[in-house]
Amino acid sequence: MHFYSNSVSSLDEIDHGGDLGRIRDAFPDAPEPWIDLSTGINPVPYPLPEIEASAWTRLPAAADGLALRAAAAAAYGAPDPEHVAAAPGTQILIETLPRLVGPARVAVVGPTYAEHAAAWARAGHAVEAVTGIDRVGAAEVAVLVDPNNPDGRTHPLPERRALAEAMRGRGGLLVVDEAFLDFEPVASLCPEVAPGLVVLRSFGKSYGLAGIRLGFAVSDPETVRRLGAALGPWAVSGPALAVGTAALGDRGWRERAARDRAADAARLDRMIVRGGGRVVGGTSLFRTADFPDGPDLHRRLGAAGIAVRRFSDAPKRLRFGLPADRAAWCRLSRVLK
Amino acid sequence: MHFYSNSVSSLDEIDHGGDLGRIRDAFPDAPEPWIDLSTGINPVPYPLPEIEASAWTRLPAAADGLALRAAAAAAYGAPDPEHVAAAPGTQILIETLPRLVGPARVAVVGPTYAEHAAAWARAGHAVEAVTGIDRVGAAEVAVLVDPNNPDGRTHPLPERRALAEAMRGRGGLLVVDEAFLDFEPVASLCPEVAPGLVVLRSFGKSYGLAGIRLGFAVSDPETVRRLGAALGPWAVSGPALAVGTAALGDRGWRERAARDRAADAARLDRMIVRGGGRVVGGTSLFRTADFPDGPDLHRRLGAAGIAVRRFSDAPKRLRFGLPADRAAWCRLSRVLK
Repeated sequence: MHFYSNSVSSLDEIDHGGDLGRIRDAFPDAPEPWIDLSTGINPVPYPLPEIEASAWTRLPAAADGLALRAAAAAAYGAPDPEHVAAAPGTQILIETLPRLVGPARVAVVGPTYAEHAAAWARAGHAVEAVTGIDRVGAAEVAVLVDPNNPDGRTHPLPERRALAEAMRGRGGLLVVDEAFLDFEPVASLCPEVAPGLVVLRSFGKSYGLAGIRLGFAVSDPETVRRLGAALGPWAVSGPALAVGTAALGDRGWRERAARDRAADAARLDRMIVRGGGRVVGGTSLFRTADFPDGPDLHRRLGAAGIAVRRFSDAPKRLRFGLPADRAAWCRLSRVLK
Repeated sequence: MHFYSNSVSSLDEIDHGGDLGRIRDAFPDAPEPWIDLSTGINPVPYPLPEIEASAWTRLPAAADGLALRAAAAAAYGAPDPEHVAAAPGTQILIETLPRLVGPARVAVVGPTYAEHAAAWARAGHAVEAVTGIDRVGAAEVAVLVDPNNPDGRTHPLPERRALAEAMRGRGGLLVVDEAFLDFEPVASLCPEVAPGLVVLRSFGKSYGLAGIRLGFAVSDPETVRRLGAALGPWAVSGPALAVGTAALGDRGWRERAARDRAADAARLDRMIVRGGGRVVGGTSLFRTADFPDGPDLHRRLGAAGIAVRRFSDAPKRLRFGLPADRAAWCRLSRVLK
């Protein structure tokens, strides 16, 4: 018996934001409570509906899983629930998919969210980072985050569709991570899924409920069944089934949230520019900017109890999530003056 | 690009209990609400503590995951949190572990919970069902459910320890599923984990919170890191972290629940015997019995709105979970008279 010799340590090296432990240690004198702008999570969460006791006590029923997948199919424009796999967070789908695929050359279009390349490498594939969708070359698997994190880059639908068709035409696989698409004026590939295309959608970010752990893969029914079998029955918790089904069926809330967060993003851009920054991209849930004094600004933000993302390969670059309330906007404004 | 050719359909064939949809269709005239005795879940759940809003809205923090794993280590007698991996349910660990191991001959001691053999087969291993731990032979991986489901069979600690040492001695792996050990007077292998031994522990069954999705693998730190990397960060939801940490730290509740459920199990045995059954085994959370008229009794229970487990390979056999309240005990008593 031997374990596959994948690296078990690479995971620890990826800084994800959203965990204040380390930065709080680095700035012990910062005012509490910290303002966490290190993630791209909607700071105004979907209001939790009443959750029945049975959602906690009973094993999730197949009918409840189907209702969630139907709500997701409708919200994302997928053909039907058979085209949707539900998981306890998109991250576990990112980890699981590479383990279902035989050894392949994988091109990850980047720079982007680091977990994709890490997960394919951990599963033993040959991973190459490429800088554009025209550089995918002869790779058997291509990974595209669109809209991209952290720069918000997005490709016109015809370009994404052409890439999907090219990969399918040669028996390959395209994985498109649409984690940040919900609130953007960007067309999804979900209505066009077919064998050779997997689209990932994230629930927690746009609904502001990242702790609930809920994400989806939209693909052809065969691939959906493979993912479902790998996750096993009852992968999604009873509370996530209840909240997710209600939230995904609430089109009005989603449309209002998209408008409100877009307004927040515009306000954040103005504040960044006033603070000497140049916005290089982002989505309605985060803004990425370069500052002449990036490392110094990161320290001043930390001293003020504000956590933002930085990038080891781009010291001038910072990524800001949206402030949650008036107090947070004011504190950020005082540093970015 | 090719997907591994594991069977994607085998999952659908396993009847797990706990999902009333099908049996309700088969008995449309049965009184509602149904009494679900088809699972081995404690019908008296751990009382839900107050859950902070941030458990839902924020990404689970590393410190919260560590606190949960420390509580689990203390409850299960594992050396420390480094020896404990937390997952969204034991089922996903059963699915994940086989995908981390190179092609192996796997012996599953049975008959037992069908997901173990199915998961190893889905991951491409050569799986053999064996009838006792003395039949493991030259297999590189052995799987033992102890206490066993559905017959409650358990092996003395020295026998389990000897099997673990034999597997380790030849570079193999022993997986022991202790899902039903919490309330039994049976010693766990958790304090003795070392490379080559993985012990699975289930939270939802004994705490009566199966919907929350929480389970653990106890093993050496290297194997724990491998499992953690395969599940990714944030595998366990915020609510499960909060409730699990509180519940696992509450030794008094666990001891009372073990006493109360053992008394329930004894009462259920008396009722089964009065109904003409012969108890062939079980745990404090379920009882398995043979009845001369098994199929007919299953129909009479269904007509009375009571769901129990049956076994396709043993038509006289039925498995009963514990009734939740006086009304459920009374209805069951009327059928088993």
